[in-house]
Amino acid sequence: MSLFVFGHKSPDTDSVCSAISLAYLKNKLGMDAKAYALEEPRKEAKFVLDYFKVELPEILDPSKIKGQDVVLVDHNEIAQTADGIEEANIVEIVDHHKIGNLSTDIPISVRIMPVGCTCTIIYNLFKENNIEVPYEIAGLLISAILSDTLIFKSPTTTELDKKAVYELAEIAKVDYESYGMEMFKAGTSLDGFSIEEIVNMDFKEFNMSGKRVGIGQVMTLDIDSILSKEDDFLSYINETEFDMVVLAITDIIKEGSYLIYKGEDKVISQAFNVNAAQGVFAEGIVSRKKQLVPKLTDAVKNI
Amino acid sequence: MSLFVFGHKSPDTDSVCSAISLAYLKNKLGMDAKAYALEEPRKEAKFVLDYFKVELPEILDPSKIKGQDVVLVDHNEIAQTADGIEEANIVEIVDHHKIGNLSTDIPISVRIMPVGCTCTIIYNLFKENNIEVPYEIAGLLISAILSDTLIFKSPTTTELDKKAVYELAEIAKVDYESYGMEMFKAGTSLDGFSIEEIVNMDFKEFNMSGKRVGIGQVMTLDIDSILSKEDDFLSYINETEFDMVVLAITDIIKEGSYLIYKGEDKVISQAFNVNAAQGVFAEGIVSRKKQLVPKLTDAVKNI
Repeated sequence: MSLFVFGHKSPDTDSVCSAISLAYLKNKLGMDAKAYALEEPRKEAKFVLDYFKVELPEILDPSKIKGQDVVLVDHNEIAQTADGIEEANIVEIVDHHKIGNLSTDIPISVRIMPVGCTCTIIYNLFKENNIEVPYEIAGLLISAILSDTLIFKSPTTTELDKKAVYELAEIAKVDYESYGMEMFKAGTSLDGFSIEEIVNMDFKEFNMSGKRVGIGQVMTLDIDSILSKEDDFLSYINETEFDMVVLAITDIIKEGSYLIYKGEDKVISQAFNVNAAQGVFAEGIVSRKKQLVPKLTDAVKNI
Repeated sequence: MSLFVFGHKSPDTDSVCSAISLAYLKNKLGMDAKAYALEEPRKEAKFVLDYFKVELPEILDPSKIKGQDVVLVDHNEIAQTADGIEEANIVEIVDHHKIGNLSTDIPISVRIMPVGCTCTIIYNLFKENNIEVPYEIAGLLISAILSDTLIFKSPTTTELDKKAVYELAEIAKVDYESYGMEMFKAGTSLDGFSIEEIVNMDFKEFNMSGKRVGIGQVMTLDIDSILSKEDDFLSYINETEFDMVVLAITDIIKEGSYLIYKGEDKVISQAFNVNAAQGVFAEGIVSRKKQLVPKLTDAVKNI
């Protein structure tokens, strides 16, 4: 039986590239594995696949998951994974996120490392197993690492991520800085997207002290076009069913995020050390995983 | 700040040996790490340390855990770990058990593999990091693997466990089968233990469909002395506060377990495919992790 390998919903570059790369590695190790995407991958991931001439993974048909052995990459929370996962057998997890209420009935294989990108772990799995990384897989791996680490500007970046990028740049034949900027520009253009699409582009749900909190993050090099529609964003998120919503418009050049939010000003003020107001700039806040989530979790707990 | 490395409460051979071995590896890799035991180790672990002339690890003083970076080996459930763990920073987990409601605030390092013993994973970490395994560490690692896999009789045994034992036997200079039997005989003698001590010797608590279920397991080569005191065991476990208690007296030669239990007959009957009665022999049931827990979980859920 083929092993299904997939990343989280709303697939970003890491989720797509880590699924394809890990399935490739497992096939090389004699297993029968296939990469899937849970939904249509984001624009940046499509740019990457196109650049390295790799086919888009098939979108997983939820009816096929029953009784299936699956490998989760780049996520471990049930809320972020395939519908119907409770009817599948999770046999392995490769991830770099915090662990969120994970339970299994039997022991499985889990490889979680506090590094900037799942693809950094997968690159190290290639090395541990002495499997050569071909050109196009090197291209996918380096793209995901540059994407998740914001070309090393994200505080989640580790030495292991950098080492992987330096080594993979040779195989993928790219100058990592100029390639990374080209990828970000292609990926962050928001032309033609609606308010709803932008909010949900990279949106994850969290439970904080019993409150349903949604955090959306958009990285773009075109901040002005978003902030000019601040009122439209605000009315959209105010109508959602979440107790609290934070939309972070992250400027990776200025290294900070503009915040549009549904929720109490004092929570935002305490979490990010700002005078809360719609559109406020939170200096230095660029990572949801390492900054937005833990800071909000603390502030919600303490207020 | 020194890293504290420790296994679960009621420390068995794997918990003690994996803590000592991983702390040794971390020190070799330039970190400052120290192994602890949460409680007095069991008889078998003491035999092993004595055999390979390694000092007993210090018992962890719970007042020292606050703000401390800790590594959990051979367990991942909060109920099985150090008191006051919520005030410590769990930075790493190396384990081979099912995952039980694990959550962290930030990403940490997790290495869980579905193998027979944590020490098999740790032996592979030595190899991945190109660190030589010295004689006494080889002795601890092989002892734990033989203990957890019941010299390969447990269904949890994998090829990776066997390979580790074959390789470690060379370094530790033992014939693994005769050494394993010697270790089991030393470890399973129940002379001088009270009813209460025997029940709690290797006792773990689980939540099954909202019920508090306690499962104790005793491996011994002297079944008769236990079964002759069946009534005393029964009155002891009937007085505990658990909704259900199963004490499995495991005969590793016959490869099965005699069951003494507090709970409904039909749950026992369905879980182990037996005509439930106190002292009933459950053929083939030797692993709590791979058999007792999942079978009971299913039966409790379905009844």
